[in-house]
Amino acid sequence: MSEANAGRSAPALLPDGEFPSEAKNGVYAAIFGRRDIRAFRPDPIPDETLARILTAAHHAPSVGFMQPWDFILIRDKETRRRVKDLSDRERRAAACFFEEPRRSKYLSMKLEGILDAPLNLCVTCDPTRGGPQVLGRNSIPETDVYSTCLAVQNLWLAARAEGVGVGWVSILRNAELREILGIPHHVIPVAYLCVGYPRDGFPDEPVLQTNGWRKRLPLDSLVRREAWDADLDRPPGNP
Amino acid sequence: MSEANAGRSAPALLPDGEFPSEAKNGVYAAIFGRRDIRAFRPDPIPDETLARILTAAHHAPSVGFMQPWDFILIRDKETRRRVKDLSDRERRAAACFFEEPRRSKYLSMKLEGILDAPLNLCVTCDPTRGGPQVLGRNSIPETDVYSTCLAVQNLWLAARAEGVGVGWVSILRNAELREILGIPHHVIPVAYLCVGYPRDGFPDEPVLQTNGWRKRLPLDSLVRREAWDADLDRPPGNP
Repeated sequence: MSEANAGRSAPALLPDGEFPSEAKNGVYAAIFGRRDIRAFRPDPIPDETLARILTAAHHAPSVGFMQPWDFILIRDKETRRRVKDLSDRERRAAACFFEEPRRSKYLSMKLEGILDAPLNLCVTCDPTRGGPQVLGRNSIPETDVYSTCLAVQNLWLAARAEGVGVGWVSILRNAELREILGIPHHVIPVAYLCVGYPRDGFPDEPVLQTNGWRKRLPLDSLVRREAWDADLDRPPGNP
Repeated sequence: MSEANAGRSAPALLPDGEFPSEAKNGVYAAIFGRRDIRAFRPDPIPDETLARILTAAHHAPSVGFMQPWDFILIRDKETRRRVKDLSDRERRAAACFFEEPRRSKYLSMKLEGILDAPLNLCVTCDPTRGGPQVLGRNSIPETDVYSTCLAVQNLWLAARAEGVGVGWVSILRNAELREILGIPHHVIPVAYLCVGYPRDGFPDEPVLQTNGWRKRLPLDSLVRREAWDADLDRPPGNP
């Protein structure tokens, strides 16, 4: 498969393991400049670019080197229409639980680009991969799903560096999604992603921040020392 | 708090949103050069470096911009000794489920640097943050934990760019860990990390690969088209 075969291994640009400042800035630029993208241009992602992004995902850490992920590439219009219908139902269902004026605001937002993105990508987790006893997974079996999430973030950041946008559609019921994609019952669909070049670029801040849905919390209020309640530096009133 | 206050916002190096090749290479170098580190030098991480790493984690995507994470910084020796004891028990328990010669190999591996790392860091997830109805979380409530995992990967990659090593200790039982760190019952300890400068640098490949525990799977065998079973490109015999 050309997309996978074009995969690259670790680049040789860091012979001593040190990051020159441009490389380090690139990492932070990807992290701070990554956005959840919901509107896409229709032009496809070149195979080599997609191969680099998937290879990045595949180089995520995984518990016991389990690599529990699979990547389902979906371009078929009819499949995407079924997924979009599923997402629309969940969107209407979710709206029932918001009060006005938030309900109208929720319903006014474009939350996904399932049909306009040139590619949909379902990242799954197979809990049986690596056999019944996976090193490091004895205490917290969910570390297989955790590993899959780390792969998604690698993918998201590599895509950002390539100028490719990614949007996570989280309002899909897994039972129905399994049926649409023929995913076995024991395999967990972890992330359903829309992937493509963003129609309107990468916004400076999260759209939910821009439109006043929710603010970024101060990092101060999330950093604790030595134990949950022992942070003496925290100003009173912070959680 | 100085560590948090030194946090930076998005850098201005990408006025047009395009990544120059050095920046792009930096992203891939962090992704391919990141390792699970288990042996550390004792020298502490400068406050500004730690602030950048935590800020990177805090800029992860989260469902409904929920930001469900907290970061507990642990330096106290006695606390770490209790966590280390917990990890040792789980290690012995896990060994009971491996057959020889894998059991001996498992027990011969150094799996964590809880006591030698200058910093331990517990990343938690508070499922109640953002109230009872979080945008995008109605179908899959676990997306709060997924978001927290994305923050961990941001942290891991930023640390790699800073030359700082991170090791995930996944063999800790959450009930006991909550007790040691005073974490409320509803809050989920997602990742217990050892953080510091690596004693032996960053190995070229995962240690579990080097020592023959498990191989990296070919990406080809993990990429499917349109549906789970529809990949006609796959050579026969591949999963």
